[in-house]
Amino acid sequence: MKIIIDAMGGDNAPQAPVHAAVLAVQEMDIEITLVGDVELLMAEVNKYGYKGRRITYARADDVISNHEEPAKAVRSKKNASVVVAANLLKNGDGDAMLSMGNTGALLAAGLLIVGRIKGVIRPAIATLLPSAKGPKMLIDAGANTNCKPENLVQFATMGDIYMKKVLKTDNPTVGIISNGEEEGKGDELTKETFPMLKASNVNFIGNIEGRDVMEGTADVMVCDGFVGNVILKTVEGMGHVVSQKVREIFEKNIFTKFAAVLAMKGIRSFKQSMDYREYGGAPLLGTKKPVIKGHGSSDAKAIVSAIYQAKKFVETDVIKSIEKNVTVMEDGIND
Amino acid sequence: MKIIIDAMGGDNAPQAPVHAAVLAVQEMDIEITLVGDVELLMAEVNKYGYKGRRITYARADDVISNHEEPAKAVRSKKNASVVVAANLLKNGDGDAMLSMGNTGALLAAGLLIVGRIKGVIRPAIATLLPSAKGPKMLIDAGANTNCKPENLVQFATMGDIYMKKVLKTDNPTVGIISNGEEEGKGDELTKETFPMLKASNVNFIGNIEGRDVMEGTADVMVCDGFVGNVILKTVEGMGHVVSQKVREIFEKNIFTKFAAVLAMKGIRSFKQSMDYREYGGAPLLGTKKPVIKGHGSSDAKAIVSAIYQAKKFVETDVIKSIEKNVTVMEDGIND
Repeated sequence: MKIIIDAMGGDNAPQAPVHAAVLAVQEMDIEITLVGDVELLMAEVNKYGYKGRRITYARADDVISNHEEPAKAVRSKKNASVVVAANLLKNGDGDAMLSMGNTGALLAAGLLIVGRIKGVIRPAIATLLPSAKGPKMLIDAGANTNCKPENLVQFATMGDIYMKKVLKTDNPTVGIISNGEEEGKGDELTKETFPMLKASNVNFIGNIEGRDVMEGTADVMVCDGFVGNVILKTVEGMGHVVSQKVREIFEKNIFTKFAAVLAMKGIRSFKQSMDYREYGGAPLLGTKKPVIKGHGSSDAKAIVSAIYQAKKFVETDVIKSIEKNVTVMEDGIND
Repeated sequence: MKIIIDAMGGDNAPQAPVHAAVLAVQEMDIEITLVGDVELLMAEVNKYGYKGRRITYARADDVISNHEEPAKAVRSKKNASVVVAANLLKNGDGDAMLSMGNTGALLAAGLLIVGRIKGVIRPAIATLLPSAKGPKMLIDAGANTNCKPENLVQFATMGDIYMKKVLKTDNPTVGIISNGEEEGKGDELTKETFPMLKASNVNFIGNIEGRDVMEGTADVMVCDGFVGNVILKTVEGMGHVVSQKVREIFEKNIFTKFAAVLAMKGIRSFKQSMDYREYGGAPLLGTKKPVIKGHGSSDAKAIVSAIYQAKKFVETDVIKSIEKNVTVMEDGIND
C-alpha cells in the first residue's frame, strides 16, 4: 500500500510530514510518496538517516497557501503539491492521499481531480471530536454550506460506514444536530431531514443538541457544514482557552507549581483525551479514493496517526461500501 | 421600580426565586411581584422572616412545563404563571418581567402578550457568554430559526444598544458568526447579511468563527437562533465535561487532594469566570417592555443577578433606544 503525502502543506511543513513519513514506514507495512520540493524533502529525510526504498518522491514546485481562493488555485496551479498529489491518486500511483494544507484546496482537489463516488451528491469532511465517551464523529465538519436533506442523509450513511469499518464501532448511533432534543424541534433543514433519517438504515436516535457533542451522546453527529465548522471551532477555541487558564493557575507560584507536580498524571491523561492529535486526520468521505485532511498545526505524531488512519481507510474498503449503500436519488441530481 | 417574577418556573422553583426576591429587595431599591401559588409563595417568604411591603403577590394557579408546546400552552393556559406575569407587565403593573421556566413559553408570552416594538421583525434572545476577555453577547441565542438578513441586522442593532447601555461597553465591536474569517466566507444568510452590517451604524468587524466565541474577539456575536442555540449548548456541555474531569483528577488520591488545596484559589476564580450565574439572565430584545430569561437551573444567587440586570435594563431606557434606532424595512414586513 502506498500513501501519498502533500509534504508542503501545513504549519510545520515540510519538517513534520517528512519526520512522520520516516516514522510511519518503520512502524507500518506501507510505502509513502512525498510530494513537493524534492531536493528539500530528500535533505530532510537524510537528517533521520533513512536509507530505505519505501519513501519515494514526486516533484511539485508550487504550493497553495491558506489565503488563496481554493477552487481557483486548484484549477490554475497545476504544479501545486496538493494538485500533483491528487493526480497521482487519481492515476493509481498510490492508494490514499493526505494533506495538512489549505482545507478548501484539498476539498477542491478531491472533488475536481479525484472525483465523487457515483451517487454521492457532495463529499463531506468527517472529524473525530473528543467526548466524555471517547471520540465521536462530526459530519459535515465544514465542506458544504446550504445543505439539503438528501445531503445530510448521505452524510449519515457515509459516517455510519466509516465508524463501523475504520473505528470498529458496533451499530453506531446517529443523531442530527438540532436546537432541541424533542422531535419537531429544528430549522427547516433538520425538520425535513428527520423523517428521512428515521426511514433510513442507520441507527438513528433523533435530535441531539450542542451539549451532546462533548457528552458523546451519538457516535455520528450529522449537520450542515456551516454548523459543523462552528461547532468544531467553538470546541477547539474553548479547549485552547481552558488549557491556557489551567497553565496560568499552576504557574502562579511555588505552591501551585508543586500542586501541578502532584496532579500531573491526571492532568496529562485528561489533556491527552482532549487532544485531536490522538485521533488522526479527518477523512473526506464521498470521493472515489481515500482523501484525508490532517490538522494544519499537526506535528509529526499527529501526522503518523493520520497516516495510520489512511491505511485503515484503504484496508477496510470503506469506499466500496459507500458505493453500495449510498442512497441514489431518483431524479438524477446525483450526477 | 417593580420587577415581576414568574416564581413557578425553573428547576428550583419556587424556593430559589423566592429566596432571590427576599435578597433583592434588601440589596436594591426595587419592589417585586411574585407570580404563582400565593399561599405557597407567602409561606416561602415567611421562612426568611421578611415582613416588608416590597414583595407583593399575584395569583396564577397553572404552570407551563418544559415539555409543553410553548405557543399553544401560552394561548390556552390563561392562568399559567408566565402568562399572568406577561399580562401584568403589559398592563403596566410592573416595569420588567423575569422567568426561569420554559424558554419557548416565555418567548411566546413576550411576543403574543407583551408585543414587539414597532419596526422589530422578530425579538431575539441575547445571552452573555464567558470568554477570555470577559462576558460577550451572543444574539440570537435561540429564539428564531431560519432567519433572514434583515433579522440579523436588527439583532446587531439591538445587541449593540444593550451592550452600550446595560454593560457599559464603549463602542462595542460586532461580528457575524461564520465558517471562516475572510470576507466572502459564509452560508447564503451570512453572505447576504455581511454588506448590510458593513453599511449599518454598528462597529462591524466582519466574520468571526467558532474559536472567537471563547477568545472574546467581538463584544456582540450575531447569528441565526439555530446556530446560536448550538453554540450556547456546546459551550455549556463542554464546561460541564471539563469541570467533571477536573473534579475527578483532584479527587483521585491524597496527593491530588492536597494539590487541589494548593491551587484552590486559582481554580475557584477560573470556575467563577466561567460561571453563567455571574452574568444574570438573558434579555429578550425587541419586546415593548423588558423581558428576561433566567437559566432553568438558576439558584438564588443567579436569580439576584438576573433581577439586577432587569433593573438596569429598565433604568437605561434600552427599549426607547431600540425604538429609535432599529432599521425599519420599507416594504412594511415589519408589522
